[in-house]
Amino acid sequence: MIWSGTGVDADLFFEDLTVGTRFDLGMITIDRAEMIAFAERFDPQWYHVNAQLAAGSPYGDVIASGFFTASLFMRAYVDHLLSRAAGNASPGLEELRWLAPVYAGDELDTRLDVLGAEVSASRPGYGTLRLQATMTRRNGDGKDVMRTTFRGWFALRPSA
Amino acid sequence: MIWSGTGVDADLFFEDLTVGTRFDLGMITIDRAEMIAFAERFDPQWYHVNAQLAAGSPYGDVIASGFFTASLFMRAYVDHLLSRAAGNASPGLEELRWLAPVYAGDELDTRLDVLGAEVSASRPGYGTLRLQATMTRRNGDGKDVMRTTFRGWFALRPSA
Repeated sequence: MIWSGTGVDADLFFEDLTVGTRFDLGMITIDRAEMIAFAERFDPQWYHVNAQLAAGSPYGDVIASGFFTASLFMRAYVDHLLSRAAGNASPGLEELRWLAPVYAGDELDTRLDVLGAEVSASRPGYGTLRLQATMTRRNGDGKDVMRTTFRGWFALRPSA
Repeated sequence: MIWSGTGVDADLFFEDLTVGTRFDLGMITIDRAEMIAFAERFDPQWYHVNAQLAAGSPYGDVIASGFFTASLFMRAYVDHLLSRAAGNASPGLEELRWLAPVYAGDELDTRLDVLGAEVSASRPGYGTLRLQATMTRRNGDGKDVMRTTFRGWFALRPSA
Protein backbone atom coordinates (compact mmCIF):
# COMPACT_ATOMS: atom_id res chain seq x y z
CA MET A 1 0.00 0.00 0.00
CA ILE A 2 1.05 3.58 -0.65
CA TRP A 3 -0.11 6.12 1.90
CA SER A 4 -2.16 9.18 1.15
CA GLY A 5 -1.09 12.41 2.84
CA THR A 6 -3.16 11.41 5.85
CA GLY A 7 -1.75 7.88 6.08
CA VAL A 8 -4.54 5.83 4.53
CA ASP A 9 -4.45 3.80 1.31
CA ALA A 10 -4.06 6.33 -1.52
CA ASP A 11 -6.45 6.14 -4.46
CA LEU A 12 -5.02 9.05 -6.47
CA PHE A 13 -1.47 8.93 -7.83
CA PHE A 14 0.78 11.20 -9.88
CA GLU A 15 -0.68 9.81 -13.13
CA ASP A 16 -4.25 10.65 -12.04
CA LEU A 17 -3.54 14.33 -11.52
CA THR A 18 -3.31 15.25 -15.17
CA VAL A 19 -2.56 18.73 -16.45
CA GLY A 20 -5.78 20.70 -16.77
CA THR A 21 -7.58 18.90 -13.95
CA ARG A 22 -9.33 21.17 -11.45
CA PHE A 23 -10.17 20.12 -7.88
CA ASP A 24 -12.72 21.83 -5.65
CA LEU A 25 -11.13 22.23 -2.21
CA GLY A 26 -14.34 23.33 -0.49
CA MET A 27 -15.59 26.41 1.31
CA ILE A 28 -14.43 27.77 4.65
CA THR A 29 -15.62 30.62 6.87
CA ILE A 30 -13.10 32.88 8.62
CA ASP A 31 -13.58 32.69 12.38
CA ARG A 32 -12.86 36.05 14.01
CA ALA A 33 -11.48 34.70 17.30
CA GLU A 34 -9.19 32.19 15.60
CA MET A 35 -8.03 34.77 13.04
CA ILE A 36 -6.99 37.18 15.80
CA ALA A 37 -5.45 34.45 18.00
CA PHE A 38 -3.32 33.29 15.06
CA ALA A 39 -2.08 36.83 14.49
CA GLU A 40 -1.36 37.39 18.19
CA ARG A 41 0.99 34.40 18.08
CA PHE A 42 2.50 34.67 14.60
CA ASP A 43 1.89 38.10 13.11
CA PRO A 44 1.05 40.71 15.78
CA GLN A 45 0.85 43.70 13.48
CA TRP A 46 -1.71 46.32 14.49
CA TYR A 47 -4.04 45.74 11.54
CA HIS A 48 -4.23 42.03 12.42
CA VAL A 49 -4.67 42.26 16.21
CA ASN A 50 -5.91 45.71 17.23
CA ALA A 51 -9.57 46.14 16.31
CA GLN A 52 -9.66 49.73 17.55
CA LEU A 53 -6.70 50.93 15.46
CA ALA A 54 -7.91 48.92 12.46
CA ALA A 55 -11.42 50.43 12.70
CA GLY A 56 -9.92 53.91 12.34
CA SER A 57 -7.72 52.92 9.38
CA PRO A 58 -8.46 52.37 5.69
CA TYR A 59 -8.86 48.64 6.48
CA GLY A 60 -11.96 49.40 8.57
CA ASP A 61 -11.52 46.29 10.73
CA VAL A 62 -8.83 43.75 11.53
CA ILE A 63 -7.72 41.67 8.56
CA ALA A 64 -6.29 38.16 8.49
CA SER A 65 -2.56 37.53 8.60
CA GLY A 66 -1.56 36.33 5.16
CA PHE A 67 -0.06 33.24 6.78
CA PHE A 68 -3.42 32.44 8.42
CA THR A 69 -5.08 32.48 5.01
CA ALA A 70 -2.24 30.40 3.57
CA SER A 71 -2.54 27.90 6.44
CA LEU A 72 -6.28 27.60 5.81
CA PHE A 73 -5.55 26.85 2.16
CA MET A 74 -3.22 24.08 3.35
CA ARG A 75 -5.99 22.55 5.48
CA ALA A 76 -8.42 22.64 2.56
CA TYR A 77 -5.77 20.99 0.35
CA VAL A 78 -5.28 18.20 2.92
CA ASP A 79 -9.01 17.67 3.53
CA HIS A 80 -10.06 17.60 -0.11
CA LEU A 81 -7.08 16.16 -1.98
CA LEU A 82 -4.10 14.95 0.08
CA SER A 83 -6.37 12.79 2.25
CA ARG A 84 -6.87 10.64 -0.89
CA ALA A 85 -3.75 11.34 -2.97
CA ALA A 86 -0.26 9.89 -2.61
CA GLY A 87 1.29 13.29 -1.88
CA ASN A 88 4.52 13.42 0.09
CA ALA A 89 5.95 16.85 0.84
CA SER A 90 6.60 19.96 -1.22
CA PRO A 91 9.85 21.68 -2.12
CA GLY A 92 8.08 25.02 -1.83
CA LEU A 93 6.01 27.78 -3.35
CA GLU A 94 6.88 29.44 -6.64
CA GLU A 95 4.69 32.38 -5.78
CA LEU A 96 2.08 33.40 -3.25
CA ARG A 97 -0.01 36.54 -3.75
CA TRP A 98 -2.31 38.14 -1.20
CA LEU A 99 -4.69 39.87 -3.61
CA ALA A 100 -7.23 41.46 -1.25
CA PRO A 101 -7.63 41.79 2.53
CA VAL A 102 -9.51 38.92 4.24
CA TYR A 103 -12.01 39.75 6.99
CA ALA A 104 -13.70 37.82 9.79
CA GLY A 105 -16.82 36.12 8.50
CA ASP A 106 -15.54 35.90 4.93
CA GLU A 107 -16.57 32.76 3.07
CA LEU A 108 -13.70 31.59 0.93
CA ASP A 109 -13.77 28.83 -1.61
CA THR A 110 -10.60 27.26 -2.92
CA ARG A 111 -9.86 25.60 -6.24
CA LEU A 112 -6.71 23.75 -7.28
CA ASP A 113 -5.52 23.53 -10.87
CA VAL A 114 -2.88 21.14 -12.14
CA LEU A 115 -0.53 23.23 -14.30
CA GLY A 116 2.30 20.80 -14.95
CA ALA A 117 3.56 17.27 -14.26
CA GLU A 118 7.04 15.83 -14.45
CA VAL A 119 8.46 12.46 -13.33
CA SER A 120 11.14 13.20 -10.75
CA ALA A 121 14.74 12.67 -11.77
CA SER A 122 16.00 12.97 -8.19
CA ARG A 123 13.40 10.94 -6.29
CA PRO A 124 12.67 7.50 -7.80
CA GLY A 125 9.01 6.49 -7.71
CA TYR A 126 7.80 10.09 -7.51
CA GLY A 127 6.70 12.86 -9.82
CA THR A 128 6.36 16.56 -9.16
CA LEU A 129 3.19 18.43 -9.97
CA ARG A 130 3.04 22.16 -10.54
CA LEU A 131 -0.20 23.28 -8.90
CA GLN A 132 -2.07 26.55 -8.53
CA ALA A 133 -4.56 27.27 -5.77
CA THR A 134 -6.98 30.20 -5.85
CA MET A 135 -9.09 31.36 -2.91
CA THR A 136 -12.13 33.50 -3.71
CA ARG A 137 -14.45 35.43 -1.39
CA ARG A 138 -18.04 34.36 -2.06
CA ASN A 139 -19.63 37.04 0.13
CA GLY A 140 -19.44 40.75 -0.63
CA ASP A 141 -17.22 41.76 -3.53
CA GLY A 142 -16.50 38.22 -4.76
CA LYS A 143 -12.79 38.99 -5.14
CA ASP A 144 -9.97 36.51 -5.40
CA VAL A 145 -8.08 36.98 -2.12
CA MET A 146 -5.09 34.62 -2.48
CA ARG A 147 -3.34 32.72 -5.23
CA THR A 148 -0.33 30.47 -4.97
CA THR A 149 1.64 28.39 -7.46
CA PHE A 150 3.66 25.59 -5.93
CA ARG A 151 5.13 22.13 -6.48
CA GLY A 152 4.29 18.89 -4.71
CA TRP A 153 5.71 15.39 -4.88
CA PHE A 154 3.29 12.53 -5.56
CA ALA A 155 4.03 8.82 -5.72
CA LEU A 156 3.72 7.14 -9.11
CA ARG A 157 0.98 4.53 -9.42
CA PRO A 158 2.48 1.19 -8.40
CA SER A 159 2.68 -1.35 -11.24
CA ALA A 160 0.14 -4.15 -10.94
CA MET B 1 3.49 60.08 13.61
CA ILE B 2 3.78 57.10 11.31
CA TRP B 3 3.07 53.74 12.87
CA SER B 4 5.43 50.82 12.94
CA GLY B 5 3.97 47.41 12.13
CA THR B 6 3.01 47.08 15.79
CA GLY B 7 1.37 50.50 16.03
CA VAL B 8 4.06 52.51 17.79
CA ASP B 9 6.06 55.47 16.45
CA ALA B 10 8.24 54.06 13.62
CA ASP B 11 11.95 54.84 13.65
CA LEU B 12 12.89 52.96 10.47
CA PHE B 13 11.50 54.03 7.11
CA PHE B 14 11.82 52.91 3.50
CA GLU B 15 14.96 55.05 3.05
CA ASP B 16 16.66 53.38 6.03
CA LEU B 17 16.34 49.85 4.63
CA THR B 18 19.00 50.22 1.97
CA VAL B 19 19.93 47.47 -0.47
CA GLY B 20 22.60 45.25 1.04
CA THR B 21 21.49 45.77 4.64
CA ARG B 22 21.16 42.59 6.69
CA PHE B 23 18.98 42.30 9.81
CA ASP B 24 19.31 39.63 12.48
CA LEU B 25 15.78 38.37 13.26
CA GLY B 26 16.85 36.33 16.29
CA MET B 27 16.81 32.69 17.30
CA ILE B 28 13.79 30.51 18.02
CA THR B 29 13.38 26.96 19.31
CA ILE B 30 10.75 24.65 17.82
CA ASP B 31 8.29 23.55 20.49
CA ARG B 32 7.09 19.99 19.87
CA ALA B 33 3.58 20.39 21.30
CA GLU B 34 2.94 23.63 19.40
CA MET B 35 4.41 22.21 16.19
CA ILE B 36 2.05 19.21 16.31
CA ALA B 37 -0.98 21.28 17.39
CA PHE B 38 -0.44 23.62 14.44
CA ALA B 39 -0.32 20.67 12.06
CA GLU B 40 -3.41 19.07 13.59
CA ARG B 41 -5.34 22.25 12.76
CA PHE B 42 -3.78 23.34 9.48
CA ASP B 43 -1.78 20.50 7.92
CA PRO B 44 -2.80 17.08 9.30
CA GLN B 45 -0.54 15.00 7.09
CA TRP B 46 0.83 11.85 8.75
CA TYR B 47 4.44 12.99 8.85
CA HIS B 48 3.39 16.15 10.70
CA VAL B 49 0.95 14.67 13.24
CA ASN B 50 1.53 10.91 13.66
CA ALA B 51 4.72 10.28 15.63
CA GLN B 52 4.40 6.51 15.29
CA LEU B 53 4.10 6.50 11.50
CA ALA B 54 6.82 9.16 11.21
CA ALA B 55 9.21 7.16 13.42
CA GLY B 56 8.98 4.24 10.99
CA SER B 57 9.52 6.43 7.92
CA PRO B 58 12.63 8.03 6.42
CA TYR B 59 11.76 11.21 8.38
CA GLY B 60 12.43 9.35 11.67
CA ASP B 61 10.11 11.66 13.64
CA VAL B 62 7.35 14.16 12.97
CA ILE B 63 8.48 17.23 11.03
CA ALA B 64 7.06 20.74 11.08
CA SER B 65 4.40 21.84 8.62
CA GLY B 66 6.08 24.22 6.21
CA PHE B 67 3.44 26.81 7.08
CA PHE B 68 4.36 26.53 10.78
CA THR B 69 7.98 27.34 9.92
CA ALA B 70 6.81 30.17 7.64
CA SER B 71 4.56 31.55 10.40
CA LEU B 72 7.47 31.48 12.85
CA PHE B 73 9.54 33.46 10.35
CA MET B 74 6.70 36.02 10.26
CA ARG B 75 6.78 36.36 14.05
CA ALA B 76 10.55 36.86 14.03
CA TYR B 77 10.15 39.50 11.31
CA VAL B 78 7.54 41.35 13.37
CA ASP B 79 9.52 41.11 16.64
CA HIS B 80 12.85 42.19 15.23
CA LEU B 81 12.01 44.56 12.39
CA LEU B 82 8.35 45.47 11.85
CA SER B 83 7.97 46.46 15.51
CA ARG B 84 10.29 49.42 14.65
CA ALA B 85 9.83 49.88 10.92
CA ALA B 86 7.02 51.64 9.06
CA GLY B 87 5.94 48.46 7.28
CA ASN B 88 2.37 48.17 6.07
CA ALA B 89 1.37 44.92 4.38
CA SER B 90 2.88 42.78 1.66
CA PRO B 91 1.62 41.93 -1.81
CA GLY B 92 3.07 38.44 -1.41
CA LEU B 93 5.98 36.06 -1.70
CA GLU B 94 8.04 35.70 -4.87
CA GLU B 95 9.30 32.35 -3.70
CA LEU B 96 9.33 30.18 -0.59
CA ARG B 97 11.57 27.11 -0.38
CA TRP B 98 11.47 24.45 2.32
CA LEU B 99 15.08 23.26 2.06
CA ALA B 100 15.27 20.64 4.82
CA PRO B 101 12.84 19.06 7.30
CA VAL B 102 12.43 20.92 10.61
CA TYR B 103 12.20 18.89 13.84
CA ALA B 104 11.01 19.57 17.38
CA GLY B 105 13.80 21.11 19.42
CA ASP B 106 15.52 22.65 16.40
CA GLU B 107 17.10 26.05 17.03
CA LEU B 108 16.56 28.25 14.01
CA ASP B 109 18.07 31.63 13.43
CA THR B 110 16.68 33.99 10.83
CA ARG B 111 18.37 36.70 8.80
CA LEU B 112 16.76 39.22 6.49
CA ASP B 113 18.55 40.76 3.52
CA VAL B 114 17.35 43.80 1.59
CA LEU B 115 17.67 42.86 -2.09
CA GLY B 116 15.89 45.76 -3.78
CA ALA B 117 14.05 49.03 -3.15
CA GLU B 118 11.63 50.95 -5.32
CA VAL B 119 9.38 53.95 -4.60
CA SER B 120 5.81 52.83 -5.23
CA ALA B 121 4.07 54.18 -8.31
CA SER B 122 0.67 52.94 -7.16
CA ARG B 123 0.72 53.85 -3.46
CA PRO B 124 1.80 57.44 -2.73
CA GLY B 125 4.05 57.81 0.33
CA TYR B 126 5.23 54.21 0.16
CA GLY B 127 8.04 52.19 -1.32
CA THR B 128 8.33 48.47 -1.87
CA LEU B 129 11.33 46.52 -0.66
CA ARG B 130 12.38 43.18 -2.08
CA LEU B 131 13.52 41.13 0.91
CA GLN B 132 14.97 37.69 1.44
CA ALA B 133 14.72 35.77 4.71
CA THR B 134 16.84 32.69 5.47
CA MET B 135 16.26 30.35 8.42
CA THR B 136 19.19 28.15 9.46
CA ARG B 137 19.34 25.28 11.94
CA ARG B 138 22.05 25.98 14.50
CA ASN B 139 21.92 22.53 16.12
CA GLY B 140 22.88 19.32 14.34
CA ASP B 141 23.68 19.65 10.65
CA GLY B 142 23.56 23.46 10.50
CA LYS B 143 21.47 23.39 7.33
CA ASP B 144 19.41 26.22 5.90
CA VAL B 145 15.82 25.00 6.35
CA MET B 146 13.75 27.76 4.71
CA ARG B 147 14.32 30.67 2.38
CA THR B 148 11.78 33.14 1.07
CA THR B 149 11.98 36.16 -1.19
CA PHE B 150 9.11 38.60 -0.86
CA ARG B 151 8.01 42.21 -1.15
CA GLY B 152 6.83 44.56 1.58
CA TRP B 153 5.47 48.10 1.56
CA PHE B 154 7.18 50.63 3.83
CA ALA B 155 6.26 54.27 4.40
CA LEU B 156 8.71 56.88 3.12
CA ARG B 157 10.38 59.03 5.78
CA PRO B 158 8.13 62.06 6.37
CA SER B 159 9.70 65.37 5.31
CA ALA B 160 10.80 67.53 8.26
